[in-house]
Amino acid sequence: MIYDPDPDADPASLTFTFGGAAPVASIRPGTVLSTWTRDCFAGRIRSTSDRVSELCDPRYINPQTGPFYVEGAEPGDTLAVHFVSIEPRESFGVSTTVPFFGALTGTGMTALLHEALEERTWLYGIDREARLVRYEALDSHYEVDLPLDPMHGTVGVAPGLGEVRSSLAPGDWGGNMDTPEMRAATTCYLGVNVEGALFSFGDGHARQGEGETCGVAVETAMDTVVIVDLLKGVPCPWPRLENDAYIITTGSARPLEDAFRIAHAELVRWTCAETGLSTLDSYQLVSQAVRSPVANVVDTAYTMTAKLPKTVLPGIEPMGGTHRRLRGQAATWLAGAVVRGT
Amino acid sequence: MIYDPDPDADPASLTFTFGGAAPVASIRPGTVLSTWTRDCFAGRIRSTSDRVSELCDPRYINPQTGPFYVEGAEPGDTLAVHFVSIEPRESFGVSTTVPFFGALTGTGMTALLHEALEERTWLYGIDREARLVRYEALDSHYEVDLPLDPMHGTVGVAPGLGEVRSSLAPGDWGGNMDTPEMRAATTCYLGVNVEGALFSFGDGHARQGEGETCGVAVETAMDTVVIVDLLKGVPCPWPRLENDAYIITTGSARPLEDAFRIAHAELVRWTCAETGLSTLDSYQLVSQAVRSPVANVVDTAYTMTAKLPKTVLPGIEPMGGTHRRLRGQAATWLAGAVVRGT
Amino acid sequence: MIYDPDPDADPASLTFTFGGAAPVASIRPGTVLSTWTRDCFAGRIRSTSDRVSELCDPRYINPQTGPFYVEGAEPGDTLAVHFVSIEPRESFGVSTTVPFFGALTGTGMTALLHEALEERTWLYGIDREARLVRYEALDSHYEVDLPLDPMHGTVGVAPGLGEVRSSLAPGDWGGNMDTPEMRAATTCYLGVNVEGALFSFGDGHARQGEGETCGVAVETAMDTVVIVDLLKGVPCPWPRLENDAYIITTGSARPLEDAFRIAHAELVRWTCAETGLSTLDSYQLVSQAVRSPVANVVDTAYTMTAKLPKTVLPGIEPMGGTHRRLRGQAATWLAGAVVRGT
Amino acid sequence: MIYDPDPDADPASLTFTFGGAAPVASIRPGTVLSTWTRDCFAGRIRSTSDRVSELCDPRYINPQTGPFYVEGAEPGDTLAVHFVSIEPRESFGVSTTVPFFGALTGTGMTALLHEALEERTWLYGIDREARLVRYEALDSHYEVDLPLDPMHGTVGVAPGLGEVRSSLAPGDWGGNMDTPEMRAATTCYLGVNVEGALFSFGDGHARQGEGETCGVAVETAMDTVVIVDLLKGVPCPWPRLENDAYIITTGSARPLEDAFRIAHAELVRWTCAETGLSTLDSYQLVSQAVRSPVANVVDTAYTMTAKLPKTVLPGIEPMGGTHRRLRGQAATWLAGAVVRGT
Repeated sequence: MIYDPDPDADPASLTFTFGGAAPVASIRPGTVLSTWTRDCFAGRIRSTSDRVSELCDPRYINPQTGPFYVEGAEPGDTLAVHFVSIEPRESFGVSTTVPFFGALTGTGMTALLHEALEERTWLYGIDREARLVRYEALDSHYEVDLPLDPMHGTVGVAPGLGEVRSSLAPGDWGGNMDTPEMRAATTCYLGVNVEGALFSFGDGHARQGEGETCGVAVETAMDTVVIVDLLKGVPCPWPRLENDAYIITTGSARPLEDAFRIAHAELVRWTCAETGLSTLDSYQLVSQAVRSPVANVVDTAYTMTAKLPKTVLPGIEPMGGTHRRLRGQAATWLAGAVVRGT
Repeated sequence: MIYDPDPDADPASLTFTFGGAAPVASIRPGTVLSTWTRDCFAGRIRSTSDRVSELCDPRYINPQTGPFYVEGAEPGDTLAVHFVSIEPRESFGVSTTVPFFGALTGTGMTALLHEALEERTWLYGIDREARLVRYEALDSHYEVDLPLDPMHGTVGVAPGLGEVRSSLAPGDWGGNMDTPEMRAATTCYLGVNVEGALFSFGDGHARQGEGETCGVAVETAMDTVVIVDLLKGVPCPWPRLENDAYIITTGSARPLEDAFRIAHAELVRWTCAETGLSTLDSYQLVSQAVRSPVANVVDTAYTMTAKLPKTVLPGIEPMGGTHRRLRGQAATWLAGAVVRGT
Repeated sequence: MIYDPDPDADPASLTFTFGGAAPVASIRPGTVLSTWTRDCFAGRIRSTSDRVSELCDPRYINPQTGPFYVEGAEPGDTLAVHFVSIEPRESFGVSTTVPFFGALTGTGMTALLHEALEERTWLYGIDREARLVRYEALDSHYEVDLPLDPMHGTVGVAPGLGEVRSSLAPGDWGGNMDTPEMRAATTCYLGVNVEGALFSFGDGHARQGEGETCGVAVETAMDTVVIVDLLKGVPCPWPRLENDAYIITTGSARPLEDAFRIAHAELVRWTCAETGLSTLDSYQLVSQAVRSPVANVVDTAYTMTAKLPKTVLPGIEPMGGTHRRLRGQAATWLAGAVVRGT
Repeated sequence: MIYDPDPDADPASLTFTFGGAAPVASIRPGTVLSTWTRDCFAGRIRSTSDRVSELCDPRYINPQTGPFYVEGAEPGDTLAVHFVSIEPRESFGVSTTVPFFGALTGTGMTALLHEALEERTWLYGIDREARLVRYEALDSHYEVDLPLDPMHGTVGVAPGLGEVRSSLAPGDWGGNMDTPEMRAATTCYLGVNVEGALFSFGDGHARQGEGETCGVAVETAMDTVVIVDLLKGVPCPWPRLENDAYIITTGSARPLEDAFRIAHAELVRWTCAETGLSTLDSYQLVSQAVRSPVANVVDTAYTMTAKLPKTVLPGIEPMGGTHRRLRGQAATWLAGAVVRGT
């Protein structure tokens, strides 16, 4: 299925929330969805002299593609979103400082009496062939290439309790988690809170550091292919990810240790469920084997990930083998795409 | 104006969010509104053997009275809600422990591996004449009277950015701030985010300690009279309160020091605006004169209050004298109420 | 007993730690100790043009009077320090901003990329007769009187685990808690960690707001009289205070909610011990009756206090009646002081 | 130089603090030091039935080897400690749960009303040839091998301000940082606070997960060879690490976002110093290139690391090429060790 958003749509007509927006399309579980996403500034920042505070309406930041109504999805189910491919649509990305936003500045929450840091904009060349993005300093002659590592900062469903949340917020519905783990060949599991799940995603990053320290990654529009699948009767209290090497939990909260606690308690519980280990045995195994990279320390909640290598889960197919199955489906689709020339 | 909610309404039909609900009535600024609110459990907890986890649907906790559409209210204005009177409707209130909720237990955010603390329910007699509530221990013979000090835990308007927030959450729209300062003879200022403001309130407490440590106050239904007024073109970034002795700011965030920072930075700025002091002079004055009681350390965000005694603001009428004016209007109404016998 | 520190002592010879310093004197439990303390800047800041960053060696900030070796004190005992009187020695106090110190600025811990806030110094006149301190703005004509409310920011003993802690740090040994509750007519209880306890105190404030928001109170030298008593075999895991109206616990930690948790868990436990209530009954009573003012949000750990009114503890003499006994001893001493003309 | 601690020493005679202990030896900068360290329990936990709470005196946890007096070291210098090799001395390691210690339990700081989690002990076989440690579940039949990855949890010098800190605490003096990055072929930079630096280290881990979630790694005694070098007149405000691929900063604080802020602000500043980039250009580069694994979320302060790949610092020799030089010296020593048969 192809969903091609109108590139000329009025910004006010786009989707800026999880929940609260009418579905743009209905999709059947198992569907391969080929679509694209705007960058978080909806394309308004295009040169080093552009300023977010001048060009962007704060109500219209971080537009999402969707929401998609997933047929048959009900509260208590889990959506499995497999990222088949994520590719920059343009040959450049942008990053900026934004007044009172970021990890190393006072903000609206960490409310201090300082003036804002200076607002600046960086432009990155994206070389899709060489798989590189090029950093260029503004105040001196310094250039360096970083690996292209495309991902989506924002992936989620409608929240529970009737809430509608800004696409700037992460939480148990997913949303703006800003983890670099959300790359191609990864499956993201999201617990369903409302009928149809109302899945959407956006905020493509050509790459980001862990923590997204200044608050803005290498932002760019993305061509993305996902398989949207549904696990009936399987709960998923917080978003999970899985790739070929790791099972990964997330936690989004403040302070950051609470995000750590959620992600690691979820990983202990997930490991119990897959292995039959007791809670304390699982706590012990996770304690010695986990990797714990920060996702973001800038959004309305901070996000931590906890990664358990599959080597400590020998013979186990997490989530009933969903990831392996979707990897196979993706390989078939990608082989076909080569044939189709897309 | 009298708004008398249907006491027999289906729980699912009540208002459990700020934003996202259709107004129950429209009111003109300056109106005296006489209404009542359900307790946070919607009346389902009535004896020491009742358990929240058995009797309450988690989707239907903390019903609000409202929302009220305030005529002429637009983003950029401030709603002034003056509490004329807040009186318990019943002769008892309840408090409970709730699994994984409270300041001294692991929770969904401070996610730990402990079993939940035991679920218990306490019943308080309320003596409106003597202005007392009676604590009775469950596990030994210990009784003691505490002052009746009625207040509303939840007061707010629709949030900005198109969000809809659960009535369990506090934030810059107000909501579940759970501060004991929200008592009669107090004016609450709330910045308007959407046309009509969509004001609602609830969560009456016969009293609560600061911090609302166990997560549940002495919960009870309330008969409440408010004057709803509108300050055109006056912004209010975070909820403010004012009584005869103090101007009070609030901040709701995690960790608790961020709530402290918001409340105190707001108080510094408010003091600048009223006095003409420079930022650093105001910072200094606030630092020596403020009182900083905790409001709640249990909700989805924690709430701090910062109180500046009006004695350090000689000759100043905060917010253009709104509180003094509404106090006068309230006195007139209360005098009339005596005559009317209500 | 009178201990009169040498006013001309070399700054480097003063006491800047809890633990690690040799005792200046030995005192027998029950002794009335009359002494004085330097202000936290050791008298170097005396005008609005003086700057801490220019005049104060960071190694010699916050000198303490002491330590005093308390005869018979052993680990497992509790020191009871009753403040008989605390009176400013001079007719002025000072406050300042200090670069990268305070609640509303980036600091060494909340490490951001901002420039420091401007460094300024305020001078307060102290009127001991009228019991007032006078605030004067630096950048406009604004003066206002605040109540004189003398207190000690720093009171403590040597820490456990062989640690030596800077007098800038608060913790379970007491130290720089900066709570305005540490005023005359208050008893402070401190658990003993080393033989002789090694009690010292300082950091007099003519007054401070709760939270000590800018990091510096109205700093001044103090003439102080304390009774130092010893409770053998009575443990005290965190400092406690008691006055005629409240029992008060403290917790010092970061984030601020952890300080809140310590103070309130301690208050729950203390209440259990005094009343025989079960833990959950005590949790409930504290939840409805406590007052929870912030002490400081600026030091190396933040400090919270939790105050339970004695009206909810009818007929109970906390800590075996120590406070009442010391109040009596203080009254006798004060009556004698009038006779002696001191 | 060989320093061989007495294996039969009285526990009370060991070193449990940074600062406050007399040096065990004096070493000249550039010396290769071959020594060994006890495990954190000083060898008292040796079977799955051993319990820390029964066998370990809380005053004698985490003994350090040292302190070593480094000749010529003065405040303002930086110690460079290069880990040549770190090898387990025994064929097993232990891990445990400890009451009220760990990331997923209430603790003395996150003080809650729960009972402690159950105390359990796990034994890991260490296979030095195969470079594996073997996890065995206690409550079911589940075994799995994890990579052997030896490291030291605790590395530090005497703190500033005259403080003496427990070996359980991390901070700007180093100490109990518990980062898995402290492995062989890594250089650790520590700012000197007192004459002679007073360097010590210990707390060997056969491996640990990031965050050290349960609070205890695979604890074991270590044979360790380090080169201790001195950079005169080079400051180092927080401990830094360097290996062949990354420069790494640390921050130790609570809440965890403050540890993140310290580590990332330090990395921004270090990058400025090495590259000549402006602060905002460095902030931007770090934001896109950093890796941010958690070190510990269990100690008295939490520790974050921030890692910048050297590929973004082309042609730059950090810290004046110290790491490359010490790597060379280590290679020479290791080659000699093969010849010597050690």
